[in-house]
Amino acid sequence: MPKISERAQSMPASPVRKLVPYALQAKQKGIKVYHLNIGQPDIETPETALNAIRNIDLKVLEYALSEGNIEYRKALQLYYHSLGFTDLTPDNFIVTNGGSEALNFAISTLCDDGDEVIIPEPYYANYNGFTSTFNVNVVAVPSTIDTGFALPPMEEFEKKITDKTKAIIICNPGNPTGYLYTKEELQKLAEIALKHDIVIISDEVYREYVYDGKQQHSILEFPELKDHAIVIDSESKRYSMCGARIGCMITRSEPIRNAAILFAQARLSPVLLGQIAATAAHDNDAEYIRSVREEYTKRRNLLVDLLNGIPGVICPKPKGAFYCGVELPIDDSDKFAQWLLEHYSHNNETVMVAPMSGFYSNPELGKKQVRIAYVLKEDDLRRSVEILNDALQKYKLEFNL
Amino acid sequence: MPKISERAQSMPASPVRKLVPYALQAKQKGIKVYHLNIGQPDIETPETALNAIRNIDLKVLEYALSEGNIEYRKALQLYYHSLGFTDLTPDNFIVTNGGSEALNFAISTLCDDGDEVIIPEPYYANYNGFTSTFNVNVVAVPSTIDTGFALPPMEEFEKKITDKTKAIIICNPGNPTGYLYTKEELQKLAEIALKHDIVIISDEVYREYVYDGKQQHSILEFPELKDHAIVIDSESKRYSMCGARIGCMITRSEPIRNAAILFAQARLSPVLLGQIAATAAHDNDAEYIRSVREEYTKRRNLLVDLLNGIPGVICPKPKGAFYCGVELPIDDSDKFAQWLLEHYSHNNETVMVAPMSGFYSNPELGKKQVRIAYVLKEDDLRRSVEILNDALQKYKLEFNL
Ligand SMILES: Cc1ncc(COP(=O)(O)O)c(C=O)c1O
Ligand SMILES: Cc1ncc(COP(=O)(O)O)c(C=O)c1O
Repeated sequence: MPKISERAQSMPASPVRKLVPYALQAKQKGIKVYHLNIGQPDIETPETALNAIRNIDLKVLEYALSEGNIEYRKALQLYYHSLGFTDLTPDNFIVTNGGSEALNFAISTLCDDGDEVIIPEPYYANYNGFTSTFNVNVVAVPSTIDTGFALPPMEEFEKKITDKTKAIIICNPGNPTGYLYTKEELQKLAEIALKHDIVIISDEVYREYVYDGKQQHSILEFPELKDHAIVIDSESKRYSMCGARIGCMITRSEPIRNAAILFAQARLSPVLLGQIAATAAHDNDAEYIRSVREEYTKRRNLLVDLLNGIPGVICPKPKGAFYCGVELPIDDSDKFAQWLLEHYSHNNETVMVAPMSGFYSNPELGKKQVRIAYVLKEDDLRRSVEILNDALQKYKLEFNL
Repeated sequence: MPKISERAQSMPASPVRKLVPYALQAKQKGIKVYHLNIGQPDIETPETALNAIRNIDLKVLEYALSEGNIEYRKALQLYYHSLGFTDLTPDNFIVTNGGSEALNFAISTLCDDGDEVIIPEPYYANYNGFTSTFNVNVVAVPSTIDTGFALPPMEEFEKKITDKTKAIIICNPGNPTGYLYTKEELQKLAEIALKHDIVIISDEVYREYVYDGKQQHSILEFPELKDHAIVIDSESKRYSMCGARIGCMITRSEPIRNAAILFAQARLSPVLLGQIAATAAHDNDAEYIRSVREEYTKRRNLLVDLLNGIPGVICPKPKGAFYCGVELPIDDSDKFAQWLLEHYSHNNETVMVAPMSGFYSNPELGKKQVRIAYVLKEDDLRRSVEILNDALQKYKLEFNL
């Protein structure tokens, strides 16, 4: 048998992958599964985007430019100008197949084998995937649920820096924590990055979804980071068009751009139709974004209140994105999540949650935590928490907790 | 300044990248440029595919399954059944963002840093990009234009095998040579692969476009290669839908599939709309494929005849795909290609060709060769060769060749 690469052997399985067969089984038994486990919103994609697709009058679906077609990069430029970054030109954007590919490009552009990136944990599980792909090591800076996943003093980041460190990856607002960085925290990170000549990779794909009148601060607000900052952006969550696979990598650094574009060229082209859809979506989107933000706010408030009403459950209020990191009164979230699908149902319904072990560099730290995405409408969320509450009681009885 | 990774520094620039600014300049001067340099056909995408997109009645563009949605994988299964591979199930397919991503997955699944892959040269230039991404070394088996790029005896492949060799990559039919492997050659490669326990990665994205009544043989015809074969496929060329970004990786090997899927999961999802378009395209496509094949046959015949009519030009007749590797009576194809755009025009028109230096492991070998894609309609090809003929004469005068 030919050998699988060590690279592949080091790839983490997605936190919910092993649950998928159990979810299928449950569905085959006629059980309805509420998916709280993934960032796939039930929010409708903007009509403008869908109509742009429906109205294409192309005869040939041609390759786009490797760095993205100019029409779409101009739409991105306009959007970033509206955020206040008026120095950006289409050249600052490399269009990618989702934020995922932008992360891939950013890491491969900066890191060689054995290099390190610093990431506050818990973090988006696929950061492990993209780092493993390139044999890069994640060095975690811990945050804990008791403080609502507040960041440790920024000095903790600095302590982790070695001569192998190439970047600090932050997610702002954060998946799975909903954490929102203050301008002061970013300022401090910027100073650290400059002092140690490393790059801040700032994943801002949830930028639009920040609540309670708060405002997200982008790493682009620090022009001194010209050569030391990469922003990861995506249309997936902004416009609930995850399947369009459109994102981008933004940098003011010419060397980084020139290097990243080589990876973009090797894969020829990002998707054409997604660029068409996203260009249309960006046009006149204020009302859409406002109403979606309002919807997520309602869902978040409902979910957090209901969850905190269950004895033994701790759910800090997320400031952004659409996930809660939740501590449950259980022994093992992987086991619990599987049990929910395999052995439990309530009036023929159950819930699927994401165990948070995969969101930490040390899986033990997430052993009692699950991530719940508030991507379902309020009625479904209400029913989901009802199920979870009932399930927790039965689970405790069954396993004598 | 933060350091760019050595990985990125080793990435080759696309063979035509440095020409792009000159092409732009030419266009700004009002010069029409015939693009013979890229595999972007002017052939129309099937109406069925475009209509499937125009008629989407989705409200949310959701993530597809990481391995591709079942509807599309079933369409692929049917297609492969029609090719005679009736044992394949949807599980044998991993849907990717173009054949490009399939190549990326195949190499990352099999190769670690410093590993080697054997490739007959000249080869598709981006193989260098995907191998560089993972610090994998290409070991070339030479073929030359004098024999119409015929392969050397298969034993030459075996001689190159070391304990670092993980795979042999073949492109069948070949870009840029149009070479078509015989069943006997494949048989021999299969034996070598089994003997040395390495994998054949067979890039068959041009499978449909084979001429003169010849038939392409897939590596899937060798069931003994169950654990030793990966096919790279793509809808880009088959249906002239390059911008849809849909391809797939096919393997009967469970270990390879299970490993590759981890990379697919990290990037979440292949494009949804491309899958919808491709599913529709596969339905009832015989007449489309037949007529496109006929069109390419006519173009090839015309182009090869005209090119061989130019003194000093050698153009072997390709058996498949839609490229010719052409030797020109010049000193340096990179210089010539740039000159065509920068300093030359004929009645305000010029041509863009791909210098073949980037298609060899040793660029010197391609120094007098260019790749010409017959992706333009006959009139345009005719005019392009006229321009090329005139340009060659002027170039020879200008540089005293
Ligand atoms: C934090 C974060 N970054 C990036 C992504 C990538 O999303 P996409 O590739 O769909 O843009 C996701 C998706 O869930 C995410 O949560
Ligand atoms: C030989 C070969 N393989 C793979 C590809 C990748 O194409 P795509 O990513 O569009 O499927 C190409 C494109 O030109 C090619 O020529």
